[in-house]
Amino acid sequence: MALVVQKYGGSSVADADGIKRVARRIAATKRAGHDVVVVVSAMGDTTDDLISLAEQVTPMPPARELDMLLTSGERISMAVLAMAISNLGLQARSFTGSQAGVITDSAHGKARIIDVTPGRIRTALDEGSIAIVAGFQGVSQDTKDITTLGRGGSDTTAVALAAALKADVCEIYTDVDGVYTADPRIVPTARKISRICSEEMLEMAACGAKILMLRCVEYARNYDLPIHVRSSFSQHEGTWVTDSPVPASLSQSAVEDPVEQPIISGVAHDRSEAKITVVGVPDNPGTAAAIFEAVAEAEINIDMIVQNNSVGASGRADISFTLPKAEGATAVAALDKVKAGIGFERVEYDDQIGKVSLIGVGMRSHPGVSARFFKALGAQKINMEMISTSEIRISVVTRADELDDAVRAVHTAFDLDTEAEAVVYGGTGR
Amino acid sequence: MALVVQKYGGSSVADADGIKRVARRIAATKRAGHDVVVVVSAMGDTTDDLISLAEQVTPMPPARELDMLLTSGERISMAVLAMAISNLGLQARSFTGSQAGVITDSAHGKARIIDVTPGRIRTALDEGSIAIVAGFQGVSQDTKDITTLGRGGSDTTAVALAAALKADVCEIYTDVDGVYTADPRIVPTARKISRICSEEMLEMAACGAKILMLRCVEYARNYDLPIHVRSSFSQHEGTWVTDSPVPASLSQSAVEDPVEQPIISGVAHDRSEAKITVVGVPDNPGTAAAIFEAVAEAEINIDMIVQNNSVGASGRADISFTLPKAEGATAVAALDKVKAGIGFERVEYDDQIGKVSLIGVGMRSHPGVSARFFKALGAQKINMEMISTSEIRISVVTRADELDDAVRAVHTAFDLDTEAEAVVYGGTGR
Repeated sequence: MALVVQKYGGSSVADADGIKRVARRIAATKRAGHDVVVVVSAMGDTTDDLISLAEQVTPMPPARELDMLLTSGERISMAVLAMAISNLGLQARSFTGSQAGVITDSAHGKARIIDVTPGRIRTALDEGSIAIVAGFQGVSQDTKDITTLGRGGSDTTAVALAAALKADVCEIYTDVDGVYTADPRIVPTARKISRICSEEMLEMAACGAKILMLRCVEYARNYDLPIHVRSSFSQHEGTWVTDSPVPASLSQSAVEDPVEQPIISGVAHDRSEAKITVVGVPDNPGTAAAIFEAVAEAEINIDMIVQNNSVGASGRADISFTLPKAEGATAVAALDKVKAGIGFERVEYDDQIGKVSLIGVGMRSHPGVSARFFKALGAQKINMEMISTSEIRISVVTRADELDDAVRAVHTAFDLDTEAEAVVYGGTGR
Repeated sequence: MALVVQKYGGSSVADADGIKRVARRIAATKRAGHDVVVVVSAMGDTTDDLISLAEQVTPMPPARELDMLLTSGERISMAVLAMAISNLGLQARSFTGSQAGVITDSAHGKARIIDVTPGRIRTALDEGSIAIVAGFQGVSQDTKDITTLGRGGSDTTAVALAAALKADVCEIYTDVDGVYTADPRIVPTARKISRICSEEMLEMAACGAKILMLRCVEYARNYDLPIHVRSSFSQHEGTWVTDSPVPASLSQSAVEDPVEQPIISGVAHDRSEAKITVVGVPDNPGTAAAIFEAVAEAEINIDMIVQNNSVGASGRADISFTLPKAEGATAVAALDKVKAGIGFERVEYDDQIGKVSLIGVGMRSHPGVSARFFKALGAQKINMEMISTSEIRISVVTRADELDDAVRAVHTAFDLDTEAEAVVYGGTGR
């Protein structure tokens, strides 16, 4: 008997039929002899509907009240899910984030979990109940106000609860069958990965793969918690994200511990970034530092940085970096403020870029991966504007409208294509 | 400066516009220098929508989960109302029943308040905030589960909070301008009562006047708390329910302390009861007791009782009593079980009855009220099937389809008609 934490996103519980389908899955897991804790998101479009209701009364909803409002979404889905499970003859009890012991800081809308004290969940399990927990929400340690965890919050709830309960696995149910070698909407021939180590999954998430949020993978890694990413719309085995052996009782097919890591795990892409180029920077010591200090003070998260020092004769260089589009205006304003002091010529802002990344721990021991990557892009006449690498990753910035071609070219160049087409079942939850 | 508790029903906050209108009223009260606590129901049809969602997954939702589900309705309305107030430049903070310290027993769906510990509300007021509290809900003292208070629960929340906070008034906002001498939908010439004592209001509520729930009036009476029933759709002064002087700072027009009580306050009616007649009861001592013991064991609430002992020769009598229609089937079943033991002939069930009641403390000192009442019904050829009286009330059971005529006849006979027509603004909240 194992302790299984399952998380279902909004698309899995979009309506009463979805909730009944999910209830049957949960009941099957319980009847297989496992203890089950379920974390659930709000139904379908509930969150968007609530936000639009708030916007009808004020353009600037106070963050505390917005959290109070939005958390009603999970309250609805968890109660109805508990009812649907009861209807199948099993005991189920729903718990808010607060009742489940999800203690956070007071940063409304993007709270961080600082402790999980799941005493009531443990009691419910000991009494034979299935525990249903509202994802995405917690209670502030200081003010006792209700908080939300921000994007990907329900996944984080699930992983944090699973870690606190020392669960055997955290199953993340979504609208695809698992983690693919590339986004199947761009590369229909992408292959499902049966197992991936947490280091690679971290790079995939950091490079734009949306299937798991970075903080959720980090959390699981810190607690050595296996994650099983799978679809609530099919019975297929999904993708195991773990550095330890896969528990045999929780896996349909034996997921072998790899004798040798594959060279490449997958191709990730990201459309959410923009590029800022600071043109005509005086080539003095300390100038680059001054620029990035100004950006850091504005609390901008920088990704890639490239300095072009070859402008020689003029004694000036260009510095480019990428950052989330959402922070673009703030960054440009921060730089304009220090322009005269530092003495650069101008700031250029470009949000028509894309980033393609190749990830695989096997790169460490296999030279020639970069050359093959660049050759694949070159053959498609795709220009590489910026390049950055880590031990297990190569990333390249391209024009936004060339990104899909770039992803496909790289995917094919590394023999990742398969013949079966991937299935995408619905929208995406939060 | 006074402490004002205001309660707004679902029809007052049916949509974003309604919420904005209510927010303006609340802001005006705050700007007039008062401390304001607001109790709010779920928006419009939210509760019905949630119940129908539950019914889509199970015919028998567990009571604990149904309470968890339904309480999301007030969570939405209170958060959005707090936002709308913030948008007017005032501070507002919303609180769930649990956060507001509404402690109940564990009877899900019909919980009773056993304590109110409004520490967080007091703090919010002390900090200059308007406190918005979810009506209809609390938290169980024993299990810490979320509970609902059942019908009229938001009014009870408001009165209980007002009592615990020692508020100067509890304003109940609804869709009519106050308490009328009769239901304006039946008697268009009914007159708004500017002031009524709690004893009369208790009888009105017990006799079917839906504007205030019985338990809410009882609660206010026990704590000597003035209630002001008024409309959120108009600025008119409503009806004060109080045995003490009306606070001048909270009343537009001076509501005088009456030198002499009016003889009659109003006419109430009730369509929610049915009549059971036990036919051919042996005329032995203890038989009636045995019948009502059986009914009491089935936890049936009985209203009026009439025993007809005039059947003489046969040595048998008929016993009739009225009870809520909802409990009719249970009562008939309970009686059928004891039929052989007691030896009565049969049980007749009749749900086509109505009850008209005349209420007024002045009856005590004015003889002849009953005669005038019966004469008014007689003139309309309305048959009186049962009669019951208290010191300040006369009630008569009629055929259901004669009830409206009976109400109008009695209203006119006691000179309660006025020339101005009453205004009804919308639906009714809970």
